[in-house]
Parts: sequence; structure tokens; C-alpha cells
Amino acid sequence: MMTSYQKNNNSLHGKKVLLTGATGFIGSHLARKLVDSGCRVTILARHSSDFWRIQDILSKIEIINADLNDLDPEKIQPSLSGTQIIFHLGAAGVDQNKQDAPAMIQTNIMGTLAMLRLAQMLKSERFIYCGSCFEYGQGNLLAENTPPNPSSEYGASKASAWILVNTFHQKYNLPVVTLRPFTAYGPFEASYRLVPHVINSIIGGKDIKLTGGEQKRDFVFIGDVAEGFCAAAAFPGIEGETFNLTTGQAVSIKEVVATIIELTGSRARPLFGALPYRASELWMQSGDPSKAKNKLGWSAQTILRDGLEKTISWFKENRIKYPAYTEK
Amino acid sequence: MMTSYQKNNNSLHGKKVLLTGATGFIGSHLARKLVDSGCRVTILARHSSDFWRIQDILSKIEIINADLNDLDPEKIQPSLSGTQIIFHLGAAGVDQNKQDAPAMIQTNIMGTLAMLRLAQMLKSERFIYCGSCFEYGQGNLLAENTPPNPSSEYGASKASAWILVNTFHQKYNLPVVTLRPFTAYGPFEASYRLVPHVINSIIGGKDIKLTGGEQKRDFVFIGDVAEGFCAAAAFPGIEGETFNLTTGQAVSIKEVVATIIELTGSRARPLFGALPYRASELWMQSGDPSKAKNKLGWSAQTILRDGLEKTISWFKENRIKYPAYTEK
Repeated sequence: MMTSYQKNNNSLHGKKVLLTGATGFIGSHLARKLVDSGCRVTILARHSSDFWRIQDILSKIEIINADLNDLDPEKIQPSLSGTQIIFHLGAAGVDQNKQDAPAMIQTNIMGTLAMLRLAQMLKSERFIYCGSCFEYGQGNLLAENTPPNPSSEYGASKASAWILVNTFHQKYNLPVVTLRPFTAYGPFEASYRLVPHVINSIIGGKDIKLTGGEQKRDFVFIGDVAEGFCAAAAFPGIEGETFNLTTGQAVSIKEVVATIIELTGSRARPLFGALPYRASELWMQSGDPSKAKNKLGWSAQTILRDGLEKTISWFKENRIKYPAYTEK
Repeated sequence: MMTSYQKNNNSLHGKKVLLTGATGFIGSHLARKLVDSGCRVTILARHSSDFWRIQDILSKIEIINADLNDLDPEKIQPSLSGTQIIFHLGAAGVDQNKQDAPAMIQTNIMGTLAMLRLAQMLKSERFIYCGSCFEYGQGNLLAENTPPNPSSEYGASKASAWILVNTFHQKYNLPVVTLRPFTAYGPFEASYRLVPHVINSIIGGKDIKLTGGEQKRDFVFIGDVAEGFCAAAAFPGIEGETFNLTTGQAVSIKEVVATIIELTGSRARPLFGALPYRASELWMQSGDPSKAKNKLGWSAQTILRDGLEKTISWFKENRIKYPAYTEK
């Protein structure tokens, strides 16, 4: 049986779509899926962007040089005429170690404003905003109607842009949809992030220094996240809505690490407690998946064990292909 | 019997306080009240600001030239050492006819970020953020835990800054409090706003062109609003909290205009329907006053009729004193 979002992917065939953040983790998976679904894909990217994640589809997409920090919608609009769906995933500060608040406000809020204006000018039929679980702050089974309560400037900037996106729906009737992926993991994730860091260390036979690992997160496989974006692009009558992309399962870092070690059969040891927790650590964060399931027909299909297995395979295969990356 | 906020005003005596937006409508009333309460008042203002609202207290306050668009907290910090309480009311876009979204994001979000950093550096004991009822959008008896849903870029920028303010509480334990005044009115209000416009027209014997006037607002007298700010500055244990400054009474524009005409005994006629409604008109907006009453000991003391009477007297007296203003 076809799920509703598989049907939706079919309905994306031939659509002219525009992406920001296509060189990032989620964006690259989405771009590939859109190409595979028969979309005509254009991306906005900086000349300085690293295209390693989308090398395989570079010949199938159009790239327009643009920077969210300094985007002039009027100027760029003519080259994007006919764009039907906009996926706005570009953002600064995803890396928690590089929190530059003014830069995040500039890129994430001003950049979103510019993209919203672009969507108005292009009269696009849908504008998908990639929000973040960090808009919520801490909590179990967080639902979309929970007021934003971020504990980082990154989360604050993403929540601010979310408000702006919805204001453009309220005031100008712009057909926006917001998606809030929780802790996405999978192939192509940046090497400094938890899952890649653990996998790469274990493959290398190294013991891994970690925090106590008691924090719980809602891990969602990247393939499912990309499916969620396609579903939200095609599903009718959801303008102005926000959807978590999440599993609803809170799993501790300890458990994730143990599963990776088990799946690899490695003898590397996790050194829990070797690193301090963050000062503003979120102890529990999981999202309520029911709205996306009931209203969008999307739910995460990949259980954590299977997702980690696929991710481990990918990292094993690609350590040679992307050596610079894995060393980062 | 003294109300709790009258007691609090006493406890502000001798405090070193800093204001932004002190040349504005709410800020000027607050600055005057702080001077009267025996505070040592410093304001940040641009050279280009019009100081007409605070002429009477200029000799009693210190003015530091600064612009929220371009504020360097590190640079300004030494001249503000010892500041105990910061009232951040400065904002762009209060005038609904001058909605410049990038300017509002710059001043209202970036400017608030700079003020939050300044508060951190100064180790101030309290940071009062002046939010806005426009963060909510439409609704009756809107409570503080309602998620932001603005229908204007101004409301979006104010809600974004509110999120940032609370993030600084969550992440850095900055002692912030947010106040959300509803439709404030009274002496010194800008002449283009509804109440002054109606009063000035009527005093001048002119018929007044208006919209249908069916919109309902929660009118709160400016003196009460300024009291609310003093209460929030002094009341212990409310860090991280947000309070409506509101009456809980939704009153139609029609009713306000009728009351003004009755109080002045004018024969001028209101021409309801002569002007079109705004495209994004809010039909109903009132706030729940119970949290401020229960947790802060503040409630609006001035009933609408009395507040309008005071306002009419002030405008009658000051038409000659501020002719340039009333002609604006």
C-alpha cells in the first residue's frame, strides 16, 4: 500500500522548486529526493558553500549564487520566475559551537524575511519553512501549539523567523507551512555531531569521550525527515500550519551509543562522564508526532536501530570518499 | 490603603535606572514617574529625537546619545556602570503607517539583543522589556501563555524580541520581566493616533472621518501603564515572567468616540464608514488582566470615562503649548 506521502511525492513530479540550505544535512537529502521525484530543482547557494553532499546531483540542478545575509528579492526574482514551491532551509548557527547571535539574527530572520518577499513576488503556491525543535526548549512530547521557549540564541532566531512566516500568512495570505525536525541523523551528517562522531571514533577503534549521556532526544532518520518535507509540499489545505517531524520516542545518548557499539561489534569503550554537560543542557526533548500523522499523513518509518545501521554502513563506505570530512 | 505598586514605587527611591524609548508615549510617562519616585534616571536617545514630551524633566535626567540601530554594549557600558534597573521601551514601527520590516527587525530585535548584552555586562538586577499586545494578534481576554500570532511585521518583531529576552533568562539567568501594554491612551499620545485625532478634531469643531468603528480594543490609561512598569521593576520573584497591562474590557471605537463627544459637549459629528477598514484589521483584541493582578498586585485603576476626561483636559490645555504637535 502506498502511504499518503508516497502519493504526494508523485504529485511533485515536474514542479519547479527552489531550495535554500541545499548544501546542508537536511537540505541535501531533500534536494536529492526532489530530483528523484522529477522536480525541476534550483538552489540558492553561496560560492563559498561546500557542495560535497550534493556532488552526485550537481548536473541535475540549477545553482544560483546568493547569500541569505544579503538577499535582494527584487533583483533575484526574474531568474526564478515560475517557481511553484519554495523550501527555505538555509540558516546560520546550526553548529552549537558557533553561536554568533547577530549573525544568526541577520541570516535566520532577515534572510527569512527576504525569502518571504521573494515568495510573494513569485506568487509561489507553497512556502515551506524549516523550523527547529530548538524553538521549544525542554519538554516531553512537545506539541506544535506549545509557546516558543528556546534556551539558545539559535532557537530564538528560528522561533522569530517562524513568527514572521506565520505573520506573512496572517497578513498577506502567503501559503506557508512550517516543519520542525527533531534530532535528525543519518548519512552526510556533519562529523562534529554526536552520531557521526561516535561512529567515526568506533570505526577508528578509538575510545570516545562523552558527557554523562543521560540527556534524551527524539532521533529521527534523515530519510524520513526528507519525506516529511515532500509530504508538506504536496498536501492540500495545510497553509499556516506547523508540524513536528519526530518519532515521539525519547532516547538517551547512552542508549544510542550502546546501540552503535553493538551494531558495529566494536571493542571501543564509551567514556561517559569524561566531558562536562553543557551549562544550558536540555535534559529531555521529544516531540508529539500525532499532528503530522493525523493531518499530513506522515510518520517516521525508520526505527532507530535500522536508521543507525544504515548510517554506520554509509560512514564505513564513505570514509575513503570523504576523508577530509571525516577528519574534521 | 496603599496598593502594592505604590509601595513598590517607594522602593524605587534612589535606584539608578536606564531607559530606552523615553521620548516616546509610554517612555515619557514612565521617565517622569521614575524622576518623581526619586530614581537617578539616565536615558539613551538619539540626537535627532524630539524631546517635547519630557521637556519638564530634562534638567533632572542624564541623556546619553545612542541609537538602538547601532548600539555597541561594550563601548557604552563604562558610562552606565552601577545601573540597577533597565527599562527597554525603544522600538521602531509603532506607527502602523510606517511599517518598514527590515528597520523593525534591526531596531527591535538587534537593538534588544544589544540591550540584553548591556544588561549582562552591567549585572543589572532587573531588565524590563516593553512588549506589545500586537504580539498576540486577534482575541478576547488573551492570556500571557497564548502563543504569539501577530498579524503585522511590527508585532512579529516585538514577539521575536520577547523570545530573545526570555532566552537570555533561560540561558544566562538574566533577571528579565516582560510587560505587554494593550491600547494605551492619555496625555502626550501622538496626534495621528485614534484618541488624540478624535479629541483634536472635536476641539477644532470638525466632523471626523472614521472607519465603521466596530473594532474592539482594550483601552488602558497611560498613567496606569506607567505604574505597571514601576510595579514590575520593584516586585520580587517575577523574573522570566510576562504580564499584560490591560483592563480586560473590550470597547468599540464607536463607543470611545461617542464618550469623547459626550464629554466635550461638542456638536461635531463622527462620520463612521467614511474611511475603509485596514486589510488586516483586528476586530477584537482584549487582554486577560488576572495574572498582573494576582502575581504583581497591579490592576488598571482608571476607568475609561475618567481617563478620557483627563486626556481631553490635557489636549485642551496643551493645544497652544504644542501647536506644531497638534497640527501634525
